[in-house]
Amino acid sequence: MKELEDRIRNDGAVKPGEVLKVDSFLNHQCDVTLFEHMGAEWARIFAGKRVDKILTIEASGIGIACCAARHFGDCPVVFAKKSQSINLDGDQYMAKVYSYTKQKEFPIIVSKRFLTPGEHVLLLDDFLANGKAMHGLIDICNAAGVIIEGIGIAIEKGFQRGGKELREAGYDVESLAIIKSMNGDEGTIEFA
Amino acid sequence: MKELEDRIRNDGAVKPGEVLKVDSFLNHQCDVTLFEHMGAEWARIFAGKRVDKILTIEASGIGIACCAARHFGDCPVVFAKKSQSINLDGDQYMAKVYSYTKQKEFPIIVSKRFLTPGEHVLLLDDFLANGKAMHGLIDICNAAGVIIEGIGIAIEKGFQRGGKELREAGYDVESLAIIKSMNGDEGTIEFA
Repeated sequence: MKELEDRIRNDGAVKPGEVLKVDSFLNHQCDVTLFEHMGAEWARIFAGKRVDKILTIEASGIGIACCAARHFGDCPVVFAKKSQSINLDGDQYMAKVYSYTKQKEFPIIVSKRFLTPGEHVLLLDDFLANGKAMHGLIDICNAAGVIIEGIGIAIEKGFQRGGKELREAGYDVESLAIIKSMNGDEGTIEFA
Repeated sequence: MKELEDRIRNDGAVKPGEVLKVDSFLNHQCDVTLFEHMGAEWARIFAGKRVDKILTIEASGIGIACCAARHFGDCPVVFAKKSQSINLDGDQYMAKVYSYTKQKEFPIIVSKRFLTPGEHVLLLDDFLANGKAMHGLIDICNAAGVIIEGIGIAIEKGFQRGGKELREAGYDVESLAIIKSMNGDEGTIEFA
């Protein structure tokens, strides 16, 4: 998606440790016009698929998913929660995820009430790198018995193994921007 | 807002400890059609005010704010982050907030790059009870030198002191549903 690639090139910053900062438009400050266009693009790509629900993960996925939902018949958005709260009771699906950026393992949780066996689900997230978070969402989907129609990603780090593994496992992964390489010293980004 | 009150009455649940569960449409599963209508209602209420940016707090505020932004000229949404991440570097505004539902104090953080002195900001959040989170956002706004045009809340617990204190301090607080009382034993909710 050219608009997203241009934005990453213009407003993104490559930091040491293969960190790509896109916090000015994607995951701290949110450009809702861009999110709208991303939603429209996923709707175009996944046209013909049945999507009953969008599943994402807090926090950065939520805005993207809520804007995208308008392009999927205003379907509900469910976001997996990252920590136990007294507001979460009853039966839950839980998976453990290791976060590279937070450098710790944390649980992700979805209430069993919000995933119904047989539902067709689209998974959305802002980043795909090693795929740890997405595998956590997939584990939850499998436990819930829902059908994963596709995986929509804003930015995939194509030089890490997450996307390749998911595609080899048969998932329809559609990333709007795939980074082939990036260089922190020179601040350059090359797209696939 | 009648649609929100009806939804709370029909799908909300009152739990011990004055906890109102609205996770089926507001803060775990998100009804984006309802969020759209909430955004339109805030736009009607705050008509004539200049809103350069919407500021909210992760995670539950993000979806609401991103849907509302469409009704405020597609302005950017900034969400305060609740924990330190290596993706957050450089100068930040920080405030400490005590969460009743998580039963601990946590920092909320906004990068200084995303609040510019003199900007007109609308604060949005899903809940207002004792006002701790909102006071944290206000502290950050004051440190940043932005102008708070108003505070939009989905559900205010009118029997707690947050809303009263903020209005007495001169803020234009607009809550779409104000709960006057609720009874966990009987499962009843009364609106103001």
